[in-house]
Amino acid sequence: MLVVMRQDAAKSDVDHVIASIEGVGLQAHVSEGKFRTIIGAVGDRELIVDMPFEAMPGVEKAIPISKPFKFVASEFKPGGTVVDIGGVLVGRSHMTFIAGPCSIESDTQAIESAIAVKAAGAQLLRGGAFKPRTSPYSFQGLGRPGLELLAECRRVTGLPVVTEVIDARDIDPVSEVADCLQIGARNMQNFLLLSEVGRQDKPVLLKRGFSNTVEELLMSAEYVAKGGNADIVFCERGIRTFEKTTRATLDVAAISVLRKQSHLPVIVDPSHAAGRADLVLPLALAGVAAGADGVMVEVHPDPSSALSDGEQALRLDELKDFIDQVRAVAVAVGSI
Amino acid sequence: MLVVMRQDAAKSDVDHVIASIEGVGLQAHVSEGKFRTIIGAVGDRELIVDMPFEAMPGVEKAIPISKPFKFVASEFKPGGTVVDIGGVLVGRSHMTFIAGPCSIESDTQAIESAIAVKAAGAQLLRGGAFKPRTSPYSFQGLGRPGLELLAECRRVTGLPVVTEVIDARDIDPVSEVADCLQIGARNMQNFLLLSEVGRQDKPVLLKRGFSNTVEELLMSAEYVAKGGNADIVFCERGIRTFEKTTRATLDVAAISVLRKQSHLPVIVDPSHAAGRADLVLPLALAGVAAGADGVMVEVHPDPSSALSDGEQALRLDELKDFIDQVRAVAVAVGSI
Amino acid sequence: MLVVMRQDAAKSDVDHVIASIEGVGLQAHVSEGKFRTIIGAVGDRELIVDMPFEAMPGVEKAIPISKPFKFVASEFKPGGTVVDIGGVLVGRSHMTFIAGPCSIESDTQAIESAIAVKAAGAQLLRGGAFKPRTSPYSFQGLGRPGLELLAECRRVTGLPVVTEVIDARDIDPVSEVADCLQIGARNMQNFLLLSEVGRQDKPVLLKRGFSNTVEELLMSAEYVAKGGNADIVFCERGIRTFEKTTRATLDVAAISVLRKQSHLPVIVDPSHAAGRADLVLPLALAGVAAGADGVMVEVHPDPSSALSDGEQALRLDELKDFIDQVRAVAVAVGSI
Amino acid sequence: MLVVMRQDAAKSDVDHVIASIEGVGLQAHVSEGKFRTIIGAVGDRELIVDMPFEAMPGVEKAIPISKPFKFVASEFKPGGTVVDIGGVLVGRSHMTFIAGPCSIESDTQAIESAIAVKAAGAQLLRGGAFKPRTSPYSFQGLGRPGLELLAECRRVTGLPVVTEVIDARDIDPVSEVADCLQIGARNMQNFLLLSEVGRQDKPVLLKRGFSNTVEELLMSAEYVAKGGNADIVFCERGIRTFEKTTRATLDVAAISVLRKQSHLPVIVDPSHAAGRADLVLPLALAGVAAGADGVMVEVHPDPSSALSDGEQALRLDELKDFIDQVRAVAVAVGSI
Repeated sequence: MLVVMRQDAAKSDVDHVIASIEGVGLQAHVSEGKFRTIIGAVGDRELIVDMPFEAMPGVEKAIPISKPFKFVASEFKPGGTVVDIGGVLVGRSHMTFIAGPCSIESDTQAIESAIAVKAAGAQLLRGGAFKPRTSPYSFQGLGRPGLELLAECRRVTGLPVVTEVIDARDIDPVSEVADCLQIGARNMQNFLLLSEVGRQDKPVLLKRGFSNTVEELLMSAEYVAKGGNADIVFCERGIRTFEKTTRATLDVAAISVLRKQSHLPVIVDPSHAAGRADLVLPLALAGVAAGADGVMVEVHPDPSSALSDGEQALRLDELKDFIDQVRAVAVAVGSI
Repeated sequence: MLVVMRQDAAKSDVDHVIASIEGVGLQAHVSEGKFRTIIGAVGDRELIVDMPFEAMPGVEKAIPISKPFKFVASEFKPGGTVVDIGGVLVGRSHMTFIAGPCSIESDTQAIESAIAVKAAGAQLLRGGAFKPRTSPYSFQGLGRPGLELLAECRRVTGLPVVTEVIDARDIDPVSEVADCLQIGARNMQNFLLLSEVGRQDKPVLLKRGFSNTVEELLMSAEYVAKGGNADIVFCERGIRTFEKTTRATLDVAAISVLRKQSHLPVIVDPSHAAGRADLVLPLALAGVAAGADGVMVEVHPDPSSALSDGEQALRLDELKDFIDQVRAVAVAVGSI
Repeated sequence: MLVVMRQDAAKSDVDHVIASIEGVGLQAHVSEGKFRTIIGAVGDRELIVDMPFEAMPGVEKAIPISKPFKFVASEFKPGGTVVDIGGVLVGRSHMTFIAGPCSIESDTQAIESAIAVKAAGAQLLRGGAFKPRTSPYSFQGLGRPGLELLAECRRVTGLPVVTEVIDARDIDPVSEVADCLQIGARNMQNFLLLSEVGRQDKPVLLKRGFSNTVEELLMSAEYVAKGGNADIVFCERGIRTFEKTTRATLDVAAISVLRKQSHLPVIVDPSHAAGRADLVLPLALAGVAAGADGVMVEVHPDPSSALSDGEQALRLDELKDFIDQVRAVAVAVGSI
Repeated sequence: MLVVMRQDAAKSDVDHVIASIEGVGLQAHVSEGKFRTIIGAVGDRELIVDMPFEAMPGVEKAIPISKPFKFVASEFKPGGTVVDIGGVLVGRSHMTFIAGPCSIESDTQAIESAIAVKAAGAQLLRGGAFKPRTSPYSFQGLGRPGLELLAECRRVTGLPVVTEVIDARDIDPVSEVADCLQIGARNMQNFLLLSEVGRQDKPVLLKRGFSNTVEELLMSAEYVAKGGNADIVFCERGIRTFEKTTRATLDVAAISVLRKQSHLPVIVDPSHAAGRADLVLPLALAGVAAGADGVMVEVHPDPSSALSDGEQALRLDELKDFIDQVRAVAVAVGSI
């Protein structure tokens, strides 16, 4: 942390900052320039993370230097992490495809989807039983019966299952079915939920909030890792911008930045970024070209009758070709 | 809902859309133009809210026309709602000041703040016991002991208390102390939490998410109101933009839009928008000038030692003057 | 400028940074911490503004400390600047109203508007002869005949005229008519145009670009001031965000920040921020409450037949009441 | 255009809208629903582009249906356009690399760069003689002597030259040297400049403004094409968002959308999006995977001494490998 004093700061102001830093056991390095004094705080960042330097008299601004996360930082595990989801590996030199419907809607829709997903070559099945929806009048998912259908899909196809948990009280029942717990974009900063999934042992798929920075995403993963669970997979799914031709703006740079800053795998969700089926493939290709370790994509037996996100779902019969094309790019960039 | 067909849509495509609309009991009004056909769906919007028109063959786009909310719409209660929080009224022709520290930190800090808040003329006390924080290494609030301190503050000053609930499991214990449950910005789309506060009877202060649209805020209120609880107060607290001189960009227009679109009161939180103490007053003045029914502001006995958000807290001795200046603008615009 | 070295930077990397700083005549203050070295560059910032520290080996990041602008900084003229536009003063303790149609469309429309603007109590007339329009098929303004109509309006009413210049080649003809040259939002970073209006002597009204930061706005004003013309008035008119209920999001904090960072006056344009007539008043009130020294507002004899921006224009007969209400807030906040 | 009336609109309001539409020669199709009336305007969109429907009494909103551009629309030239820049083709099934320094700084730097660019396999040379810079204290380019150096580079290497024009008065001198005129991001809505480059015959490289929508970019191209010059190449270079780990957020979806909506080629500029050298490659790969027809990239003999944008420049000796890797992705996605 660098604390930059105002040009007109009094000596007592400088002393106060130094005392605050030293008071919690860090060292204060003082650099007196021609115009202003700069104080560096050296030591354990956690001890001063809450210190309101900018509210102290004479302080112009406080500038964090060291990374605010630890367990998820690349330095923590230089070789990179490969997460095992029900026997399927996600991480460097693997290329994992997660596919399935947005929502589990019915027995037929679920099983038909799962079989097609497997046949097309995807390794993991996704499907929502609990759906966070903007409108209280929208379909909210089947809930626990949806979980049972997911379990049935796994029995039939052998595909491990990724599904979202939106309430800490559901972690146990969801874990009975899921091989990986998804934390959705809207819950990326639901810190209680993060802490609780950090205290259980199923892998966690952590989606970036549509208005959260990469650093905030890393901090949210830190909540999970700090709880003891380091099996975390990041998912970039687009951010909210002024541009409205797509549902969100896929931030491909974030994929690359996450791979540099963290040892954890990163996948891309082109479906929610695009919001429209015709852009799902190019966004998937772009995400993988930028370094994604996998792709999560929404498919549906009949998108035009889907109960949620039909506009962005691929048809089941489009999935194999989609996977083949994405895989070609993965090969071209050396990801597999 | 207007469904605009492509220029090259087949007759069967048009028929399919019509059948989908009529299939759920709405009427389809077909308008055949020179270049394309437009189909209007007339009837209960809820019945087609999930229909994926844009995934249907031949459809160019679907354009919602009617408002997607009902209970919170201005038409639902033309005279406007005045919410009673422990005897203090919030709404048109009232001007309510809610003040207190960001976090409840200690006995002394809490009581000293509460007494000063009352002396300065604020009518409601705020203070956080459960704090959602970006970093797991930051102070997370005192939790239940913090609630007890809030109860003590109320006993001492008589001020009704507004405090945040971040977990559905805490609704009961928080309600024992709070006169109003605050839903924070990060939980604005925590739909489970919204539904559950909608099923209890304490008033709800609903903060806008920093990246949510006004319409999404109205939909979140609809979750609460649909549960049976119509005592909702909106709070505009700034949105995330590219501009970084402030923590968030206060969207004053949203205050005015909310008052036009809904019967519910709207207050402004200048502290979180500014993120720095020197801008709290001008933002409060702007919010009230734009039509806010009240102001929620953070104060602290010693901002430079606060455990959270010290940079944006006013000192206790600044509060009275702050309230006086805001009130002058409220008078000038006819709010009181 | 602070140059933060990586933890693994070599001594030669540090020496290279020092040599670069000293090579242009600044002093390098080196602070060796436990983990990393930080180098402060002290002296004339202009000499290192282009130095690509972050491209130098071993450098983690370069952090600018001093303000990048000089002539427009508050320190340059502590008392604040009052700009004289054809005898009308704009600045602290004045409250100036600039009103008129978006575009000058015809003799009748222009004169009728100008007379009404004067009668309502506004001190300056606005009106566009050259209009930058998103579509090449939109009305582009009357051009030079529009300037003649503006001259006629001034003759009839005596009101000084503010009008936009969009091409350096038009500065002379526009200056013959205008008392103040407006630089529109889309030209805020048209640096040639800025430099050239900086070399003539008519006051300049500089609108913030809809996606430019406050600092970029200050830098653009610096271009004008560096040319020799310090008669600059800032205009906040809203920034582009994800929220679409208004045409732009009025950034009221920017008004306050500009007044703190610069000695130049700041006005607010509620019309372009709102994009709809019913929000023009609340946004004007908010802007003035936040500290604006004036308001620029669009009016039209018949908004429903306007050739540009009719949606956001007030009717001529609404202007007097608008001014009265805004003035009441200006009095309440002590601006007049 | 669809004009949606309010529920409480009077018959006279409806009649007024109809009369306005028919008054300019279009047909009005009236659809009377149960709750409201919707009026479709059928005919030449240009005739009503400026009509302020939303300012008319009884109108709730006006919704444009047809595309607001014509000459650049994909329907205008279904086979797609291949632009010839000094003999180098840009467009479908070509993959063009444009490389060179941000600014032309000196004889040595320019020639050395040009030779290396050619040797690495790029087909076009870029380099700025006129530089729009945020600060008036930054290097503004060499101006006309810079143009002469570009001419020399072309003589030496035979590479056609792409360079920016920032002032209509410079079009002639720049055209003497350039094989393609670049319109920079800040001038994307400098409509005069667009019109004037539309009236000369050199191809135009049109960069997306960092806060402009895809539709606005298409409209800006329409200005050029309407002037008679249809040799336009789009360039996506990132948009401004809240995320600050990169200089801009590369909008890869825009590349795909532009290719769908227009017949014109699209290239990607990863350098300005990244703002840092280590992300240039992944962003280029992502852009090409999303469908870009080429890449424009900044290189420099010594980035750490560059006078502009050194942080994002690749070294000359990195270019060949960069091109090889990008080309591999182009092959994988079938672009070449």
